[in-house]
Amino acid sequence: MQSENNLLSKINHTVDQLADPKTYEVVCHEHRLGEPVPSSEKLARIVNMVREILFPGYFGNTTLRQDSLRHYMGVYVDELFALLSEQILAGLCFTCDRKEEVDFKERERYAQSLAADFISFLPEIRRILVTDVEAAFVGDPAAKSRSEVIYCYPAVRAISNYRIAHRLLQLGVPLIPRIIAEMAHSETGIDIHPKAEIGESFTIDHGTGVVIGSTCIIGSNVKLYQGVTLGAKSFPLDEDGNPIKGVPRHPIVEDNVIIYAQATILGRIRIGRDSVIGGNVWVTNNVAPNSRVLQFKARESSFKDGAGI
Amino acid sequence: MQSENNLLSKINHTVDQLADPKTYEVVCHEHRLGEPVPSSEKLARIVNMVREILFPGYFGNTTLRQDSLRHYMGVYVDELFALLSEQILAGLCFTCDRKEEVDFKERERYAQSLAADFISFLPEIRRILVTDVEAAFVGDPAAKSRSEVIYCYPAVRAISNYRIAHRLLQLGVPLIPRIIAEMAHSETGIDIHPKAEIGESFTIDHGTGVVIGSTCIIGSNVKLYQGVTLGAKSFPLDEDGNPIKGVPRHPIVEDNVIIYAQATILGRIRIGRDSVIGGNVWVTNNVAPNSRVLQFKARESSFKDGAGI
Amino acid sequence: MQSENNLLSKINHTVDQLADPKTYEVVCHEHRLGEPVPSSEKLARIVNMVREILFPGYFGNTTLRQDSLRHYMGVYVDELFALLSEQILAGLCFTCDRKEEVDFKERERYAQSLAADFISFLPEIRRILVTDVEAAFVGDPAAKSRSEVIYCYPAVRAISNYRIAHRLLQLGVPLIPRIIAEMAHSETGIDIHPKAEIGESFTIDHGTGVVIGSTCIIGSNVKLYQGVTLGAKSFPLDEDGNPIKGVPRHPIVEDNVIIYAQATILGRIRIGRDSVIGGNVWVTNNVAPNSRVLQFKARESSFKDGAGI
Amino acid sequence: MQSENNLLSKINHTVDQLADPKTYEVVCHEHRLGEPVPSSEKLARIVNMVREILFPGYFGNTTLRQDSLRHYMGVYVDELFALLSEQILAGLCFTCDRKEEVDFKERERYAQSLAADFISFLPEIRRILVTDVEAAFVGDPAAKSRSEVIYCYPAVRAISNYRIAHRLLQLGVPLIPRIIAEMAHSETGIDIHPKAEIGESFTIDHGTGVVIGSTCIIGSNVKLYQGVTLGAKSFPLDEDGNPIKGVPRHPIVEDNVIIYAQATILGRIRIGRDSVIGGNVWVTNNVAPNSRVLQFKARESSFKDGAGI
Amino acid sequence: MQSENNLLSKINHTVDQLADPKTYEVVCHEHRLGEPVPSSEKLARIVNMVREILFPGYFGNTTLRQDSLRHYMGVYVDELFALLSEQILAGLCFTCDRKEEVDFKERERYAQSLAADFISFLPEIRRILVTDVEAAFVGDPAAKSRSEVIYCYPAVRAISNYRIAHRLLQLGVPLIPRIIAEMAHSETGIDIHPKAEIGESFTIDHGTGVVIGSTCIIGSNVKLYQGVTLGAKSFPLDEDGNPIKGVPRHPIVEDNVIIYAQATILGRIRIGRDSVIGGNVWVTNNVAPNSRVLQFKARESSFKDGAGI
Amino acid sequence: MQSENNLLSKINHTVDQLADPKTYEVVCHEHRLGEPVPSSEKLARIVNMVREILFPGYFGNTTLRQDSLRHYMGVYVDELFALLSEQILAGLCFTCDRKEEVDFKERERYAQSLAADFISFLPEIRRILVTDVEAAFVGDPAAKSRSEVIYCYPAVRAISNYRIAHRLLQLGVPLIPRIIAEMAHSETGIDIHPKAEIGESFTIDHGTGVVIGSTCIIGSNVKLYQGVTLGAKSFPLDEDGNPIKGVPRHPIVEDNVIIYAQATILGRIRIGRDSVIGGNVWVTNNVAPNSRVLQFKARESSFKDGAGI
Repeated sequence: MQSENNLLSKINHTVDQLADPKTYEVVCHEHRLGEPVPSSEKLARIVNMVREILFPGYFGNTTLRQDSLRHYMGVYVDELFALLSEQILAGLCFTCDRKEEVDFKERERYAQSLAADFISFLPEIRRILVTDVEAAFVGDPAAKSRSEVIYCYPAVRAISNYRIAHRLLQLGVPLIPRIIAEMAHSETGIDIHPKAEIGESFTIDHGTGVVIGSTCIIGSNVKLYQGVTLGAKSFPLDEDGNPIKGVPRHPIVEDNVIIYAQATILGRIRIGRDSVIGGNVWVTNNVAPNSRVLQFKARESSFKDGAGI
Repeated sequence: MQSENNLLSKINHTVDQLADPKTYEVVCHEHRLGEPVPSSEKLARIVNMVREILFPGYFGNTTLRQDSLRHYMGVYVDELFALLSEQILAGLCFTCDRKEEVDFKERERYAQSLAADFISFLPEIRRILVTDVEAAFVGDPAAKSRSEVIYCYPAVRAISNYRIAHRLLQLGVPLIPRIIAEMAHSETGIDIHPKAEIGESFTIDHGTGVVIGSTCIIGSNVKLYQGVTLGAKSFPLDEDGNPIKGVPRHPIVEDNVIIYAQATILGRIRIGRDSVIGGNVWVTNNVAPNSRVLQFKARESSFKDGAGI
Repeated sequence: MQSENNLLSKINHTVDQLADPKTYEVVCHEHRLGEPVPSSEKLARIVNMVREILFPGYFGNTTLRQDSLRHYMGVYVDELFALLSEQILAGLCFTCDRKEEVDFKERERYAQSLAADFISFLPEIRRILVTDVEAAFVGDPAAKSRSEVIYCYPAVRAISNYRIAHRLLQLGVPLIPRIIAEMAHSETGIDIHPKAEIGESFTIDHGTGVVIGSTCIIGSNVKLYQGVTLGAKSFPLDEDGNPIKGVPRHPIVEDNVIIYAQATILGRIRIGRDSVIGGNVWVTNNVAPNSRVLQFKARESSFKDGAGI
Repeated sequence: MQSENNLLSKINHTVDQLADPKTYEVVCHEHRLGEPVPSSEKLARIVNMVREILFPGYFGNTTLRQDSLRHYMGVYVDELFALLSEQILAGLCFTCDRKEEVDFKERERYAQSLAADFISFLPEIRRILVTDVEAAFVGDPAAKSRSEVIYCYPAVRAISNYRIAHRLLQLGVPLIPRIIAEMAHSETGIDIHPKAEIGESFTIDHGTGVVIGSTCIIGSNVKLYQGVTLGAKSFPLDEDGNPIKGVPRHPIVEDNVIIYAQATILGRIRIGRDSVIGGNVWVTNNVAPNSRVLQFKARESSFKDGAGI
Repeated sequence: MQSENNLLSKINHTVDQLADPKTYEVVCHEHRLGEPVPSSEKLARIVNMVREILFPGYFGNTTLRQDSLRHYMGVYVDELFALLSEQILAGLCFTCDRKEEVDFKERERYAQSLAADFISFLPEIRRILVTDVEAAFVGDPAAKSRSEVIYCYPAVRAISNYRIAHRLLQLGVPLIPRIIAEMAHSETGIDIHPKAEIGESFTIDHGTGVVIGSTCIIGSNVKLYQGVTLGAKSFPLDEDGNPIKGVPRHPIVEDNVIIYAQATILGRIRIGRDSVIGGNVWVTNNVAPNSRVLQFKARESSFKDGAGI
Repeated sequence: MQSENNLLSKINHTVDQLADPKTYEVVCHEHRLGEPVPSSEKLARIVNMVREILFPGYFGNTTLRQDSLRHYMGVYVDELFALLSEQILAGLCFTCDRKEEVDFKERERYAQSLAADFISFLPEIRRILVTDVEAAFVGDPAAKSRSEVIYCYPAVRAISNYRIAHRLLQLGVPLIPRIIAEMAHSETGIDIHPKAEIGESFTIDHGTGVVIGSTCIIGSNVKLYQGVTLGAKSFPLDEDGNPIKGVPRHPIVEDNVIIYAQATILGRIRIGRDSVIGGNVWVTNNVAPNSRVLQFKARESSFKDGAGI
């Protein structure tokens, strides 16, 4: 057993090491005084607020009446504007090369401008999400009602976050879209990169383990099951051996495709329209329209001993 | 950069659109004044309270003594009754077609009646969960003690929620069972539909990505690994092209079956007792008792270049 | 509808059953008066505090300046020491066979001693995590900056928790390492047993569904994708039919190996250095260095009807 | 030092005593299942909400714009209606003789009806409070602006609560007005009985210790200083020696009266208009209009020793 | 305007000064590692718990039924015991001269022993408080019911805290009684020193500004109004000019005395039984039983000008 | 009973009235987008942080060691600087005439500059408060230790807030000093205007009801008891009948004066050094040094009937 002095000097010594700039310089993030910082808590409130705006009466804790709905929309949008402006600004500051020539006030106004642009897109996001909800409801015999889909289905959560994050990314907001996508990833196990392009009436059943890469293009009326990967196989390197960023490297999935659980589809290949991909397959080549792809048959045998495989 | 007036008029215009009934009518949920609403926060408290009742001394923040345990049981059950009655009522209201003829007071009493019925089933739930914990402990060489299993294993969380939700669903409670199941899904990545029927001594190792569909029937002493799907392959459509709800479409898994990671088993097929299903297989046909099913051998080759696959 | 008396007597009867020692004795955990209990909330604060110490400026809500960084390190380490000492003590108490001969005061000092030892290892943990962050950044074309990796990537969270938990386990702390690992599992879907041994420059892409078993040994510069299992195939039983604990039963993965999504690799086998394992394969045998392992080709066919597979 | 068993049996014995109905029967309050209970926390939110409605932009945490103010009013009033209905119902239940014949649903509707009546009086409350704020501003040379008065002056808080509570009491709401008045009493030290009648342009400077009894009648433009009591001297007893309730027993204070610090004015007397009452006096008789009442001159002497009085 | 560097160096310089031991040594309080500290938050919970135990159904947020009341008593007492033991220990540590020879474990047991002794006195505290509530109800024509008195009257709060604190002080608990008394003082403006001795059926009307000194002795059936001081006039000094501690220096108030608002009664004098002291008087001599003491008549005059006094 | 429609139209009508600009224009406060607002919650944290800095080890929840104290000072001062800068800015914005020509960035820097100036005064505030604590300890026979005084005495709280607020006001910070003073007023019943000037070794016993006006000047070593008013008698009006602001109108109290409970001292008079003012007196004229002022003797009589005064 160490003496108390021994403990404390060990601790003091560690503080010295941890405070040595050499040890933290690549992993330290300095904010400038007065700059907002990205906040998962505030972003969670933003996403909840957007969800309450899009699906009135589901996620707030209030009694909505036809009479008062307009007031609630007004207030929610107003609060959303303030919160979102701040977080967009936080994203801009976080990724800024923090040269002194940036005019903070102007950047703040720019953030507000992006927030207003995002807000003006909300009616369109609502329109698309309604098609997603409908697809989930129609496609799942276990769904009792559209209400249940909106209220309980993790895919609705993940797709909502994706559509929000995608719009923010299109507007040029840094970092924030990625955090919003990761919030849904953590909650639902569905990882959709905000840069992917996804059509209407999109649905994901169960969803845990789904991955949709950043350069994916997905058509309308596509359905994925849990564990499906739409990923990159490999990526070209530049002369220094570093991956070249921005090259399309994820699949294109055309309209009306269904992909079953745990299928792994890699590379900039094309899955033709109306195809069905069975579960647990590994696909790295194009698939023609109207195709059916299944795993090679499993080996089945009888055995006596209970001791595993 | 937009002027401030420009921003504000953009926002005001969006509020107008969002408050237009045509745009939200399929996705708006109106509560009647005074009706309780389903609350994830309260349901989380309900589930925690049930867990503390079932496994005394683990999840509460109190010091249990033999002397005082009875008092705690009394108080927890009492609080559970109040909270659960309210949330069951919220479920009944949420799914009610809200015709004016419903007598609110009677519905409230009905909710209390269901809550009391649920509570009277708690000793039986405890009895079954003890078999599940035992199965996890015996089956995992990494488990140090039953305590560790109860305290840390996500499967215990998921299976507890399932057994709670299953009982509520059997009693006819709408919506709430599904929310409780999704809470475990979000936390553990294990998605068990509350309608599935699952025997004793059930265990799931690691668990992320497991899906158990609503018409599954699972025997005793079954063990699943992470990523296992017990799903539906396809479902019969009615004359309008909509899926027919309520048809059995998920597997039957008999006693003593082990299914390894990422196996996808689809359709109303039967996995015979004492069988072992290897990982990553795609199974859509019956499997005889005492069988072993393995993926077709992988292709192995040597390669020089480091550039992926 | 039951009468109110009926409800209450049903409830009272259930309390009697639940308070009957016979029904809870294997699932009840008694604390002694004054002993701390493991607390997920406090452990979450501990992990956040460690992360803020390792990556200054990312996870706290403060404005870091070069001048004040040392003060923050001092305060965080000080608070960490107090919290961690208490939770280590809670772990010791939880797993103690609670014989009366234990000297509480001495055990408390022992917990403090372990906490100080852990703290003195923090600079080394920071050094290794920097290599992990670098590997994630270099290996992902979608990563914009190291900041984004630290801030958003679930793998960083999971690997940080693993490296923390691994060190605590090496120091002999019971239970707590497992809880810390499960916290990351719940949040990210990545399940790394704290006992596994993992080299530097380790990265996991997306990550949901990854499982790394307790006796795994992983070299440097290894990359896993989502859904990869490094698990046990079966385990030897002792004469009573119980699994023998502590036997190596999980894979050894050598340096520079890449394993694609959903691959399941089981048993104490060796994946030779510089190999690539394709997705969705089931591997239960050794793989030579420089190998490429791919799933057997899928069956592809054309079909007309839209009704599934 | 007592043994642990000794301690526990002492505790157990005390529980027996405390649970003996004879010991608590006069001080126990039973609620019926499902009835709301008066909640200081909710009442505090109600009062804050009313204050934000009356003085927009002061007490909420939002950025008010002319455009959005109407939305905020709509939402606040809506939320106020729900909260207040519930708390009024709680008041009705609390004081109800809980005979079984009460129809809960009807009582609930009655509570809503009272809440709506209260809300429709809010514009009038705002009008009167504006006169109170003006009186405080004009009468205090230290006040920099009306904003400062609204924001900081405890009298505004106390008078607002009084005017709210007074209206509720006029509507026949039991218990709740008293709790609201006590909330201000605790916060400001100003104790105004909600039954008192108080004219416009009323102000209290500093305020700690002011007491205004339930049958007081106060005219317009009256100013009180800290510690002023408008109380009852004695009260007639009935034949059983109990005080007769409801008899006027507190002062009438006419228009434009100023009463200085610590003056104690007792009984159903009349302080005539335009009078000034000096501090620390004891007044139990009528005071004519235009009077000045001062304490009898103090005795002043010189002394040498420092030891007190 | 100062430059940013200027600001920061000013701040750094101040930190140096504040961290200089010479500047804080008389006002710094060092805790030893692992010692609990007095916590107003926990003490507030203790007091609320005691109030809920004494007056069941008033201050908790639960629905009490005859059936479950015993369970609640058991649980509340159990939790009270744990919390109170810790806070008593905190008090003992705070005032300890922290010599190394103290055995922490023994002190902890001693704290538990005191907590159990306090708890065993709760039935007696309930008995006395019932007499206080009765006195308040009977003596106040504005009181509608005993419930209203228990629920709303600040005097009940202040007297409860006093009776709790007094008992703890009698048991020898340091510091904690004083903090409990100050909590009521802050909330109600009533300052009763826990060392004062006060008989049954004691009541205080309104109460703001009442002060009852530490060596007061108050009989049964005494009533005080707001602003009454029972204080010390002067106190003997020792040869160094410091006040001699522990000398009786506050009034004795005999049975059935009424003291009106703002009366100041100083010194170890005796107010004889059945006397009435009028408001705003200054009393420093004994008062015979059955006396009436009133302020000398005020000077009343007429005046024209509105400009004050 | 009103119909539901009736209720709702009543509510809607009220919203119309409340949103009519004419009704709120004098009591509405508009913030500009992005401006901070004064926040009682943040100011409370500021005051607590200052108290923890001044009296280390008392108000934080941490274990202070000599080694770590400097780190804590550094961190607290750093956090204080950020919070205080924001709240000073909020005060500047609140009282600004919000002309468009104000440069927000410059105002922000000005706020930081004031915050740094305040911080550099903290060592001096600590020095003075030590004299106040000493005076309270020496002057109160009931005080067991300086620790108890710092920890429990409301006067320390009130005087700390005063000394903080006074310094901020001297620096020219608007509004914030007043809010800080009112926080202490609400908590302790002691109302000290931040503009008053008060010497060292100042103490207030019990304190409820004390009022110290804005132009008071108080020497060293002065002691006040509860209920003492140092107020204004009347104030000169300008030609419009409005009080002239800024004129000295409160007493000057010289060194070593003691003023007993409930004394009311009004106007710009001088209480000469070493004087003692008895309780409950009304003083509106100068008092010579070394004087003793007592209330005129009370009228004492005997009475039989129990019916009051």
